[in-house]
Amino acid sequence: MISVDEAKEILSKNPIALADTSLPFQQSLYHTLASDVFADRDAPPFHRVTMDGIAIRAASLKSNKRYHIEGIQAAGQPQLSLSDAHHCLEVMTGAILPKNTDCVIPYEKIHLLDGVAEVDDTGYSPFHNVHLKGTDAKKGDRILQKGTWIHPGKLSVLASLGKAQVEVRQLPKVLVCATGDELVPVAQQPLPHQIRSSNVFMLEAALKSLGIKGQTAHLTDHREKLKTEIEKALETYEVLLFSGAVSKGKFDFLPEVFRQLGVEILIHGVRQKPGKPFLFGRKGNRFVFGFPGNPASTLVCFHAFFKAWLGTSLQRETESSSAILSDEVLFNRPVTYHLLVKTVLREGKVWAVPVKNSGSGDWVHLSEADAFLSLPAVPSVFKKNDVFPITYFHKDSF
Amino acid sequence: MISVDEAKEILSKNPIALADTSLPFQQSLYHTLASDVFADRDAPPFHRVTMDGIAIRAASLKSNKRYHIEGIQAAGQPQLSLSDAHHCLEVMTGAILPKNTDCVIPYEKIHLLDGVAEVDDTGYSPFHNVHLKGTDAKKGDRILQKGTWIHPGKLSVLASLGKAQVEVRQLPKVLVCATGDELVPVAQQPLPHQIRSSNVFMLEAALKSLGIKGQTAHLTDHREKLKTEIEKALETYEVLLFSGAVSKGKFDFLPEVFRQLGVEILIHGVRQKPGKPFLFGRKGNRFVFGFPGNPASTLVCFHAFFKAWLGTSLQRETESSSAILSDEVLFNRPVTYHLLVKTVLREGKVWAVPVKNSGSGDWVHLSEADAFLSLPAVPSVFKKNDVFPITYFHKDSF
Repeated sequence: MISVDEAKEILSKNPIALADTSLPFQQSLYHTLASDVFADRDAPPFHRVTMDGIAIRAASLKSNKRYHIEGIQAAGQPQLSLSDAHHCLEVMTGAILPKNTDCVIPYEKIHLLDGVAEVDDTGYSPFHNVHLKGTDAKKGDRILQKGTWIHPGKLSVLASLGKAQVEVRQLPKVLVCATGDELVPVAQQPLPHQIRSSNVFMLEAALKSLGIKGQTAHLTDHREKLKTEIEKALETYEVLLFSGAVSKGKFDFLPEVFRQLGVEILIHGVRQKPGKPFLFGRKGNRFVFGFPGNPASTLVCFHAFFKAWLGTSLQRETESSSAILSDEVLFNRPVTYHLLVKTVLREGKVWAVPVKNSGSGDWVHLSEADAFLSLPAVPSVFKKNDVFPITYFHKDSF
Repeated sequence: MISVDEAKEILSKNPIALADTSLPFQQSLYHTLASDVFADRDAPPFHRVTMDGIAIRAASLKSNKRYHIEGIQAAGQPQLSLSDAHHCLEVMTGAILPKNTDCVIPYEKIHLLDGVAEVDDTGYSPFHNVHLKGTDAKKGDRILQKGTWIHPGKLSVLASLGKAQVEVRQLPKVLVCATGDELVPVAQQPLPHQIRSSNVFMLEAALKSLGIKGQTAHLTDHREKLKTEIEKALETYEVLLFSGAVSKGKFDFLPEVFRQLGVEILIHGVRQKPGKPFLFGRKGNRFVFGFPGNPASTLVCFHAFFKAWLGTSLQRETESSSAILSDEVLFNRPVTYHLLVKTVLREGKVWAVPVKNSGSGDWVHLSEADAFLSLPAVPSVFKKNDVFPITYFHKDSF
């Protein structure tokens, strides 16, 4: 058995090779940019009016307070030209600043009467209320770096830059496989010794939050059938996620089947709780993740290992997080303890409150956790107010 | 003009009435539960084996160390019965605990030879490695409350409880309208005085993060056309979001058009920066949001007002957040200042680092912010290390 850090090291050294693909920009949301994006023009592309009002030449304020209005420069209209330096043009937010003007005085600060704008205050300088051409970026500047995560604000940048098609990293094709003969479909009434399948749907949903539309399948705990089905799945899918069948049970055939299919098992067993029997293997550019079948084990291993591995594969910016333990926790075994917590934000601090549960099979209380703290592999009393790495299961966008 | 708090108060008193709808559970992800969900059986539904190994009667350990193996209790198999109290049954994780047994000893702690399991340690108590029936929930318990946000863990709970169909609150039909004659489509090369449309795509993406598939439209700055198109849109859509045309410009026809269409304007103008001209109106159960057209104004108003309004309408659990200002900020006007920030997590603390930008038209630097701090409407030097409310634009799921 290896440590959590050793497991992460192996995962990071075995990324999946992902092709780049071009998507219409609206579909690129939450993908990872595969190439740098440059400004095709200055931003703003012209001296841009930032208030509705009048445009004048600031120097004229020395000798003038009443401005005859020559016309209106609307947004989207070609640039007008002020013909007389003691006149003005009405200008609208977003319009190009008219030629021969350099200063915008908002409507709130003038009086309009009979085609004349009267200015009270004469203390305006050039470029007042003007967003100068090229202030924010120059044509040719690199605006977005490859590896960037495309959130709504970045999508807007792509739109502004005219990137109707965007180069992103292709996400892998993933199949989520349930194993376990005790599982019945959700709509079916289970017999007393059966339970409903749920982990695959949790994984499918977790994949969706990473932008991946995974497929689900249920495989029976039958050695030969498993082998045939996995062999076939490996033809179509680049990544297989399994929930169950990787431990020491008599019907935990996965490790054996993987070996028979030529899958090299790179990790099997990690010094952690939950998720000890975690398995990771590869065959060329195909990858298998074996998550222990208890709900907490499956979810923790997905977030601790699969998510990190995918982030590395995408060469994506990611940041590690930490949180403050809200209560003392005793854990007396030399393995990393992934403690289920609910985070609470108070005064700019992230508190991790342990979620009471009856073990890794307790899906009722698992669903109350939004993250886990990873307590280091030293038998210890982990103190209240100490800070530990945290991994989130989900984040509320509201 | 009203304060930000007054605006929020008006919004919360004018929620949209949303119907409930039934969705296949996999589609219910990120929706809001419309009814309580109860346990249809105990959780776990039977005494559940939590380790692969042998099941015995703990009391037998007083007189026995060698157990003849009667058979295997696999997961998903009807309950077997141990016939002799000094024998054992092999049991697999997830199986029902066999009748006449009460204790599971894992394979790691026994020796198997010739159909006999030998136990070294005899200090096992009843229910060792058994997840007792009903520990986590009893049949009839309320497991999920209405108003719950369905994240992957909750989806899994719905699956476990057999909720193949889930009652959720219907999300509103939303149309996002760009205004502004300076805007051209993303794929088009703008003329020198034009820019590409981008705010609507930013809003469409932000809606998507709340689970709403919005439509987009571009309306011209023409009074009569606007009126006709908005009248038509109000027949199909429950909510219209506008970017632009709500300020003091000569072509900012929206407030006038709304009035002509019988839309009651409940908010127009908020003491805040950016976003001063923000508009909110209703006509029966139809709602309009007018966001000022600068990118930062649009995005801040969407998150400060629309998101809060939608959360209230969904009667959804939401939590307020705060963050620690990383640098001193001077702001000398008596309006709420929504300061663009990038959050940095260090030692369990959320630091809000101001994002330098040239104003609310600067979409380049806006895209570097992931949130805004709302600094109160008192002209002040806002001190480093002080804590303020924060609103996120997006959250990275990685």
